[in-house]
Amino acid sequence: MGHIFQSVDAFRDILTSLPETDETAQTGAAARNGQLTKPPGALGRLEDVAIWFAGWQGDSKPRLRFPQVLIFAGNHGVMEQGVSAFPAEVTEQMVLNFQHGGAAINQLCKTFGAQMAVHPLSLDRPTADFTKGPAMSEEELLEALQTGWDAVNKNADLLVTGEMGIGNTTPASALCAALFSGGADEWTGRGTGVDDAGLANKTRVVAEGLANHAGQGDGLEMLRRLGGRELAAMAGAIARARVERIPVLLDGFICCAAAATLQAVNPKALDHALAGHVSAEGAHPKLLELLGKEPLLSLGLRLGEGSGAALAIGVLQGAIACHSGMATFAEAGVSDS
Amino acid sequence: MGHIFQSVDAFRDILTSLPETDETAQTGAAARNGQLTKPPGALGRLEDVAIWFAGWQGDSKPRLRFPQVLIFAGNHGVMEQGVSAFPAEVTEQMVLNFQHGGAAINQLCKTFGAQMAVHPLSLDRPTADFTKGPAMSEEELLEALQTGWDAVNKNADLLVTGEMGIGNTTPASALCAALFSGGADEWTGRGTGVDDAGLANKTRVVAEGLANHAGQGDGLEMLRRLGGRELAAMAGAIARARVERIPVLLDGFICCAAAATLQAVNPKALDHALAGHVSAEGAHPKLLELLGKEPLLSLGLRLGEGSGAALAIGVLQGAIACHSGMATFAEAGVSDS
Repeated sequence: MGHIFQSVDAFRDILTSLPETDETAQTGAAARNGQLTKPPGALGRLEDVAIWFAGWQGDSKPRLRFPQVLIFAGNHGVMEQGVSAFPAEVTEQMVLNFQHGGAAINQLCKTFGAQMAVHPLSLDRPTADFTKGPAMSEEELLEALQTGWDAVNKNADLLVTGEMGIGNTTPASALCAALFSGGADEWTGRGTGVDDAGLANKTRVVAEGLANHAGQGDGLEMLRRLGGRELAAMAGAIARARVERIPVLLDGFICCAAAATLQAVNPKALDHALAGHVSAEGAHPKLLELLGKEPLLSLGLRLGEGSGAALAIGVLQGAIACHSGMATFAEAGVSDS
Repeated sequence: MGHIFQSVDAFRDILTSLPETDETAQTGAAARNGQLTKPPGALGRLEDVAIWFAGWQGDSKPRLRFPQVLIFAGNHGVMEQGVSAFPAEVTEQMVLNFQHGGAAINQLCKTFGAQMAVHPLSLDRPTADFTKGPAMSEEELLEALQTGWDAVNKNADLLVTGEMGIGNTTPASALCAALFSGGADEWTGRGTGVDDAGLANKTRVVAEGLANHAGQGDGLEMLRRLGGRELAAMAGAIARARVERIPVLLDGFICCAAAATLQAVNPKALDHALAGHVSAEGAHPKLLELLGKEPLLSLGLRLGEGSGAALAIGVLQGAIACHSGMATFAEAGVSDS
């Protein structure tokens, strides 16, 4: 379903002409917000979030009834460089865990009423080791973008993209280092928990990736050279959500690194996205700052799977319920000063 | 229902012999947490929160199915000193709004499946102006404590206490200044939005309250002299929750000031409580620090009504769903290193 891309360039073209927020709905929502039975500004960030959401949904009194959570899984050639504390088999084992309902994200989706789907991407065919060449061919990138694009339910009113991919903080760090300033040191962290020697090794791998690929193209080309299938699929899904005007909650470091490749192509590409949380992965706060996103939650999560963003669905549900469900001063007969 | 207090001293006595957390359940929960399909610590604060909750519920695999939100409303004699931007009638108007389902807290309770009840406390009989004498008599304090105590449903598995009371940041500031160090300046803030002159006036009123009452007794005596009925009812409800071993989410500045009167009597009195959020009211961060509570949320709310704590119910639901619903490494057949 949706657009079938003939080439990465066709996807790139879409990024240059994205729909904008509905300003009439947003203005209407701001006006409504000012009439609700509370002192002005007393719901803090919930007010801003509801007004932002109203613009993307195109309704000054929006509803949030159908959040969708998409988990993409991929395996990574850089695992040959010993970048993770876990073996690559865990990616597939965790996909089964997602399918059987046993992972954290399953519980969070149940808690907040989100529809969840898992898309494993050629797990038996890891990407190439980016210290030796591009991680993906043009065709492989295209297929992953398309998988993400197709996975979005256009009837959803909120999208969360998450990932599972043992070793994938390494491509995420390499992408950030290639897209932004700062070297491998600044962008490489402990992921699921490597020790000091592991961190030094990851930093070396990221530096080699940078030396081989940085400056060789735009955000999508960096995604092809340094990324991975699950990162590309998240980018595809986030772009599709924009085309459908579905608001997005970004998850942690890896999700945001994937999203950053879109922003590198079009600085307004993530206007329909909020940061669900700031993770404990070292470079995530800096990445959020560079993306211009203030996280809704800061609870020290560093799991991936879309877990931090899924937890933030509750905050959004609360914000929208207040905005759209509260009485106005006039309706309630409450004095407004 | 529950204990009927013959005197404030009888309530005071209960505070000196409170039940503790169930260490066996807590230890069991910590052991379970270590076996769940995630890297150690990857759910961050959600893990600590679930283990803490398990201890109070007395079950290493706890459930959160019946959150209760109690809103207490009161009117304040210090309103005669011009301490609020809103007129006192708004307290009763907002009680009607709560009863008709139009306030922010109604929407949040619906969102998170919480049972909500509103208890107006003698709104036609404001407390006395504490610049002229004690806010309440012993009998009035006792009645308010008892109302809060009786309002707790002992089958609830989580309690949120909220308040509505035009002018009630002033007694809350006076209580904090009397219970902790720092003068009226440090504890007085803008409440629902007074201007600079209003802030100066509030600070004067708090200073007068302090001069008249500080040092004249313990936390409960300060609650009587400087507090208000809704603050006393929150204190009564929080104490009852402790006796029933029901975990509590504290709301903003006023709720925490009420809770602080219990902690002043027994430093362990709030061990069953977490801070749901940090509010935008100026002195709330300092108060949380003095209570030793790190807030779950920081979203700039300053509404009261239990709204910040109600929003944090979602975080707790997510934490407990993950803890009690996730598969272990063994159950899922996932390699754990």
